[in-house]
Amino acid sequence: MKSFASDNYSGIHPQILDAIQHANKQHEVSYGVDYYTSKALEQFENIFGTVKVLYAFNGTGANIISLKCCILPFQAVICAETAHINSDECGAPTQNIGCSLLTLPTRDGKLTPELIKPLLSRIGNVHNTQPKVISISQSTELGTVYTLNELKILCNFAHENGLLVHLDGARISNAIASLGVSLKEATVDCGIDIMSFGGTKNGLMMGEAVLIFNDVLKENAPYFQKQTAQLFSKNRFIAAQFIALLTDNLWLKMAIHANRMAQLLAAETSKIPEVKITRNVDANAVFAIIPTYAIEKLQHKHHFYIWDEQTKELRWMCSFDTTEDEVLNFVRTLKELIR
Amino acid sequence: MKSFASDNYSGIHPQILDAIQHANKQHEVSYGVDYYTSKALEQFENIFGTVKVLYAFNGTGANIISLKCCILPFQAVICAETAHINSDECGAPTQNIGCSLLTLPTRDGKLTPELIKPLLSRIGNVHNTQPKVISISQSTELGTVYTLNELKILCNFAHENGLLVHLDGARISNAIASLGVSLKEATVDCGIDIMSFGGTKNGLMMGEAVLIFNDVLKENAPYFQKQTAQLFSKNRFIAAQFIALLTDNLWLKMAIHANRMAQLLAAETSKIPEVKITRNVDANAVFAIIPTYAIEKLQHKHHFYIWDEQTKELRWMCSFDTTEDEVLNFVRTLKELIR
Amino acid sequence: MKSFASDNYSGIHPQILDAIQHANKQHEVSYGVDYYTSKALEQFENIFGTVKVLYAFNGTGANIISLKCCILPFQAVICAETAHINSDECGAPTQNIGCSLLTLPTRDGKLTPELIKPLLSRIGNVHNTQPKVISISQSTELGTVYTLNELKILCNFAHENGLLVHLDGARISNAIASLGVSLKEATVDCGIDIMSFGGTKNGLMMGEAVLIFNDVLKENAPYFQKQTAQLFSKNRFIAAQFIALLTDNLWLKMAIHANRMAQLLAAETSKIPEVKITRNVDANAVFAIIPTYAIEKLQHKHHFYIWDEQTKELRWMCSFDTTEDEVLNFVRTLKELIR
Amino acid sequence: MKSFASDNYSGIHPQILDAIQHANKQHEVSYGVDYYTSKALEQFENIFGTVKVLYAFNGTGANIISLKCCILPFQAVICAETAHINSDECGAPTQNIGCSLLTLPTRDGKLTPELIKPLLSRIGNVHNTQPKVISISQSTELGTVYTLNELKILCNFAHENGLLVHLDGARISNAIASLGVSLKEATVDCGIDIMSFGGTKNGLMMGEAVLIFNDVLKENAPYFQKQTAQLFSKNRFIAAQFIALLTDNLWLKMAIHANRMAQLLAAETSKIPEVKITRNVDANAVFAIIPTYAIEKLQHKHHFYIWDEQTKELRWMCSFDTTEDEVLNFVRTLKELIR
Repeated sequence: MKSFASDNYSGIHPQILDAIQHANKQHEVSYGVDYYTSKALEQFENIFGTVKVLYAFNGTGANIISLKCCILPFQAVICAETAHINSDECGAPTQNIGCSLLTLPTRDGKLTPELIKPLLSRIGNVHNTQPKVISISQSTELGTVYTLNELKILCNFAHENGLLVHLDGARISNAIASLGVSLKEATVDCGIDIMSFGGTKNGLMMGEAVLIFNDVLKENAPYFQKQTAQLFSKNRFIAAQFIALLTDNLWLKMAIHANRMAQLLAAETSKIPEVKITRNVDANAVFAIIPTYAIEKLQHKHHFYIWDEQTKELRWMCSFDTTEDEVLNFVRTLKELIR
Repeated sequence: MKSFASDNYSGIHPQILDAIQHANKQHEVSYGVDYYTSKALEQFENIFGTVKVLYAFNGTGANIISLKCCILPFQAVICAETAHINSDECGAPTQNIGCSLLTLPTRDGKLTPELIKPLLSRIGNVHNTQPKVISISQSTELGTVYTLNELKILCNFAHENGLLVHLDGARISNAIASLGVSLKEATVDCGIDIMSFGGTKNGLMMGEAVLIFNDVLKENAPYFQKQTAQLFSKNRFIAAQFIALLTDNLWLKMAIHANRMAQLLAAETSKIPEVKITRNVDANAVFAIIPTYAIEKLQHKHHFYIWDEQTKELRWMCSFDTTEDEVLNFVRTLKELIR
Repeated sequence: MKSFASDNYSGIHPQILDAIQHANKQHEVSYGVDYYTSKALEQFENIFGTVKVLYAFNGTGANIISLKCCILPFQAVICAETAHINSDECGAPTQNIGCSLLTLPTRDGKLTPELIKPLLSRIGNVHNTQPKVISISQSTELGTVYTLNELKILCNFAHENGLLVHLDGARISNAIASLGVSLKEATVDCGIDIMSFGGTKNGLMMGEAVLIFNDVLKENAPYFQKQTAQLFSKNRFIAAQFIALLTDNLWLKMAIHANRMAQLLAAETSKIPEVKITRNVDANAVFAIIPTYAIEKLQHKHHFYIWDEQTKELRWMCSFDTTEDEVLNFVRTLKELIR
Repeated sequence: MKSFASDNYSGIHPQILDAIQHANKQHEVSYGVDYYTSKALEQFENIFGTVKVLYAFNGTGANIISLKCCILPFQAVICAETAHINSDECGAPTQNIGCSLLTLPTRDGKLTPELIKPLLSRIGNVHNTQPKVISISQSTELGTVYTLNELKILCNFAHENGLLVHLDGARISNAIASLGVSLKEATVDCGIDIMSFGGTKNGLMMGEAVLIFNDVLKENAPYFQKQTAQLFSKNRFIAAQFIALLTDNLWLKMAIHANRMAQLLAAETSKIPEVKITRNVDANAVFAIIPTYAIEKLQHKHHFYIWDEQTKELRWMCSFDTTEDEVLNFVRTLKELIR
């Protein structure tokens, strides 16, 4: 049975699986010198303009490659406390690069120049790690989405202060679906230097694309990818998935659907007086507080995670394959448990 | 057209692809807490007895995890100069662990106690990196295979001197096919502490299994896997491939076939007086020297790599999907080019 | 002119310099296999009982060695936000070890089980870095001192939860002078596993001793020292300084004096109504807030640092060579500037 | 009694010790913002022209800082197998930087373009670590000295191929004494990008200077120094030593003397028919093979090391304080033992 635990509980979208199957012909040159990888590059270029594209097996891999391109060990990544790189990667960026994370508490998972400014006093002080890159998640781990304006202000602030901007786009599709603008407008046009375009959480078997817009960051990237054990010998099978994902905006259709399911879930559960939706539902995540006695029983029927053990705030994730029936079913169970 | 360049030029075996397709149902708990991962564990236990199994996306990932389990940064890995970890991973083990590699020239890609002994004088000298693990490749990068006796002698030597033994099994299937013994006999029964069981080069879309036999190495392994960006959220799709690979000895059948094609290729080409087979053909690789004038033209028709730019020694790899016709075709072309 | 900027602005105590001079005879075996190093070990053993002693050139070096002995890259150091390892070492522990720091805000620079407890939920979760060592500074960077009772409670809490305790003792002498107990009582007897005994900030030209009490941490320590570039070829010249420091409790006499000067400074300045002493003066540091208009002028006559640029809290450090006259002189200047 | 074991068995030259004593006045701003550090910089600039100078506590520290300035983790250091960074630093450069060492066997400890050329084929191949810096020792660990011409040819070769040149100058003074040219002529004028100027092995209590000539390498150097735990709070005490060392060419006088003692030792021992001097005696080291039965007895009276356990080649080091009497005494003992 489908769950609301995570968008990585879902499987492979049928069109993506078809693409894998169709790529399974003949021999292909390995390590990305193949037809599919160059075709996928074309598609990315059609969307973003000039861009260097490298692939990673998973989000942690993509984040490490991206950050390796940006910083040296004495430098630091500025990120929200809730950032995946801080809370869910077992310290992988720090271990792989030697750099430090400067984490900031936020109200909604989003960074702002105001939050970051106090860290600028570190610059030039040899006793302090040196801020070099701002890493943001879009959509955030709290299900919120940066507006175009927020992105532009943040990128300008970064560049004016000699900082780069990295976008962890494990759920960039959901953010774009929410913003209703183009991928290009919401990334490179805002000033993003390097980003990941997530596939695993949006219907791929696995795979993330690292997209590099800033020329300075391009040269060493393939070596960082290789040293991070993310260079795939049979890369055609990641590339083919991305080709399918990018064709006819499949990525967007899936994300729009997942977001719509989250809206439905939030709308229906918020009608229950005992339920409090705790965060803006900008993308495919719903955060809520429900009567404590109902949590375990609800989890038993529909798997999901408790986001915050202190406050008992819950997280319900929708994914590309969540159906309206499943949402309504979930709401029905919740109502029954509360009554 | 199929090539003799590398066994990673090949695609996915149809039964493996079927397995991926069949695993693509419903939601599954992520990060390896799923039906397929536990079923694959059972199968590995049936083969090897008690074993801890972790997965990696590729061979470099599997090697890093394995070596991380074995050593601290002041310690060193003893390996052959030809070892993949030394020659083909862009320094990834060193970068990820901080450890050094102590590389030894060999005649045939195989390490022996005699070769290693001089390094033991380093032990206890604080100015020297400390040998801690012997890493061998089976089959080796030169297409040779350690005998059971060689493995036992090496493992005993290692353990008597406080060293561990890691086996890079990117092509372990080809070695087993060559030896005609069981997987267990040729690994844990010889004293191997930790190994990878390669899938990518033997018909999988991607995936390697890290098999840990030595109890001491088990505890921290999941953290090392996670920090190396090798923990797969949708792990069912690697596990399902291994289930198919292990079922009815598919892995062995494929390896036997690839080895047989290499035998055929060696037998037929060695009949040509101008061709010299330069290495024992124990597994699925054939190394040869042919008239220099023929190299480029042969490459043009059937892609392969020049192994050694100095000596113009060539490497021809066979894989699970190499056909007899393709081999004979290759031989025919070669004959025509030489005449 | 002497300043109140830092105890590392001071020079070498005459008896320490004499000791260097006296050790400058003949040749000595290098890398710590010399008369002075073994004599210093004896003295440390007289004070602490069984202990492994290694030396470092500076505090950062001592902290890196100590933490390297305690943790693996996927593990984390728990420390106060104000800890030197977090705020003043340019990320050196993280860069050298790959580990993460889990920093906690504190009221007074001191950690407690209550502050740490929420971090224990990370243990066993592969997505989180794993807490492994609690690092405390004694005296703290805020000039406060843990009581024996606080130390015991913290060490017990640590050990009950599988954690180690590291003590950054750059100013341990000042803490002991404040507590009025023996070095042993306040360290190993409380359960400290590993610590540094600071020399540089208490009259040495340079040098810190890493003292290892926990047997498990001893074996690899010399290699970690060497790899951190802290093994001194002419170690007799650090050892000789420690011999002098430990003889007739010179370390304690100096620390008592420095603490007394801080008490005097706090007592005299707190008589000025416009001055607010902001922290307990347990050791040799005085923290204060004075009228903003007086800061720069006071700094001009007596160098010191602004601790917190936001609140304009100042830090005045006393050292072994601060005189009563200098303190009273400083107070006089301050009074004049305020009036 | 003085030994021939190592030039780091010696103590502090009296004028150096005096300098430490004279610097021990008043308070000084810490971390190198002091009178002595800026005076030493002036002296280095007088010798070398424009140069950035940083200090390290020991040779390993200086080498790590220097190499950190030159390379990224996926890049590699080319060095002789006999290089200190390869054989005597417990893998510290590799551990601290993550980079690999590409070691080359040499006849005399010296690298040449011919030896290095085969490594250039790695450049641009993502599977290989990328050569980036050539590290040479001057004088070498085998007591030989690169000529000006050899240095120029090597540096030109490096720069033409996009490589940097690092000079490990732990014994640069002995090399200059041997060459009879100026420091500048033999380093920056030949094209050296970054080097260490060794003090510890030439009469300092401790201290090495990292000299950076290549502008590109200067910017990040202070952070690398700090993160390597080599930034000395009381830096005046290293700087003061260097001031004395550089004044009136004390460094050169000491080195000339040590070299002369090595010449005497080689000349006298080579008169003994059973003794074979095995290396050119360009600097302060003598390598020799003597009758095996005499080794242990000779060591007993005059400590020295067996350089090569296989061949029983011995190393005899002279230092600034070795006297003619001691050399002749040594020769006499040797003669007696052989007869």
